[in-house]
Amino acid sequence: MIDCGEGSQLQMFKMRLPMNRLTDIFISHMHGDHCLGLPGLLSTLDLHDRGPASPVNVYLPEQGADIVGRMVKFFCGGAGYPINIIPIPRDGGLLMETKSLEVSAFRLYHRIPAFGFLFREKPKPRKLLGDMADFYKIPLSMRADVKDGADFVKDDGTVIPNSRLTTSAPPSLSYAYCSDTMADSRVARAVEGVDLLYHEATYLDELRAQAEARGHSTALQAARIALEAGVGMLMIGHYSKRYNDPSPLLEEAKSIFPNTIAARELDRISVSAKKTIS
Amino acid sequence: MIDCGEGSQLQMFKMRLPMNRLTDIFISHMHGDHCLGLPGLLSTLDLHDRGPASPVNVYLPEQGADIVGRMVKFFCGGAGYPINIIPIPRDGGLLMETKSLEVSAFRLYHRIPAFGFLFREKPKPRKLLGDMADFYKIPLSMRADVKDGADFVKDDGTVIPNSRLTTSAPPSLSYAYCSDTMADSRVARAVEGVDLLYHEATYLDELRAQAEARGHSTALQAARIALEAGVGMLMIGHYSKRYNDPSPLLEEAKSIFPNTIAARELDRISVSAKKTIS
Repeated sequence: MIDCGEGSQLQMFKMRLPMNRLTDIFISHMHGDHCLGLPGLLSTLDLHDRGPASPVNVYLPEQGADIVGRMVKFFCGGAGYPINIIPIPRDGGLLMETKSLEVSAFRLYHRIPAFGFLFREKPKPRKLLGDMADFYKIPLSMRADVKDGADFVKDDGTVIPNSRLTTSAPPSLSYAYCSDTMADSRVARAVEGVDLLYHEATYLDELRAQAEARGHSTALQAARIALEAGVGMLMIGHYSKRYNDPSPLLEEAKSIFPNTIAARELDRISVSAKKTIS
Repeated sequence: MIDCGEGSQLQMFKMRLPMNRLTDIFISHMHGDHCLGLPGLLSTLDLHDRGPASPVNVYLPEQGADIVGRMVKFFCGGAGYPINIIPIPRDGGLLMETKSLEVSAFRLYHRIPAFGFLFREKPKPRKLLGDMADFYKIPLSMRADVKDGADFVKDDGTVIPNSRLTTSAPPSLSYAYCSDTMADSRVARAVEGVDLLYHEATYLDELRAQAEARGHSTALQAARIALEAGVGMLMIGHYSKRYNDPSPLLEEAKSIFPNTIAARELDRISVSAKKTIS
């Protein structure tokens, strides 16, 4: 989960997201609308049969560790599962990794310390063709090597080239999340080439001065970051309340980055690989 | 406002309750579902042109003063209006009064320290009959006395009895709120004779043991408290999630206290005077 404003648990419930599968929460910055849903959500998780072996890790700017630690202790003190409060290093960096995924943080440029998050799938193995594996009787013990690209050598010494046994690996997808921030080239470098970039677009470009004063971006600026970073798709969000409808913001962003979509509450978005494979 | 769980500000918004008129918030106990909406609500109030002369007073059990104080300082630190955190005395008592209203706290019996709240309108003046006031040319300076029950003495010494000039005062209404609590006769004494009593009714009476173990009441118990206290009307609420519909709880309460209603999210309830005037 990225950010957890007031009411996040209710939205999870509405979307029927499985509470049990939540293990890591990444808080971008310590404004209340990005983190005040934490104590309630963490309390509710306690009702879902989590045990001592099912911790939840909360990554957040170091400025928030004390207050969030106190809130968790007060409101979730009797929780039956561990809640780990983990300060993000000042300059970001790798936060966690699993067998298939890496999550890292990078600096954003807002009124208070803020971080973006980059989710990057690790390289995946090639796909072994089932009928070929059967035909050549490839032992189970050797299949991992073949998926990693090795040729298969039969008992009689015949070499079956890997290209006959496998198809190429599915692409490793990447997603970056940037909210709240001023448009900044350093952000573009941090998210270079991701398949999907979420970037805030609080205002239309006619309010660029206000965006800068408040530490936010315009839709045009978000699109420029997407262009500069060479991302596959841009999703904008975090619209100022003055816009009842995000269409003008979307049109502005599309004018220079056509592959843009506008985030809406409760949307589900699939990340797909960039069309251009280098 | 009584209690302020996560999402309270959203419910206020849905009901179009005027944010500007909120001056006092009464927190019954420090479980998260009764107070975690505070920092978000207090932040939002700051967007509504409140100034240094428009404080918000938050009354809460003393056990919560430290953590709420820290949360308010962290998340609402730059608020342009004063936020006063006011611990409720251990045994309750008068919390605030205005020209027309008194609010006091009384002990509840839950797993942690908890308070109920009693709202009591002060005695109201009698209603001066406009045509009589004109007919007898009662000077403005004397009208307050007449509304308080005085006869009017004309310049020539004639006494006009008050009963000709006024009608009786409208009733002073009272409302008591009790959640979360075990059913307890001390609560009945604290809310004696109120026009409307809100009392929690978490379970049906078949789960009375569980109610006691968790510091809650059954619908039947809530109705007994209403009967014992001689209230005008009972409103039950705080139903366990196991009941998709409060009808069985309502029926159970009505079986011994017929003038019962079941609270539902976003309801508006009018308090009216008890039918029986003693």
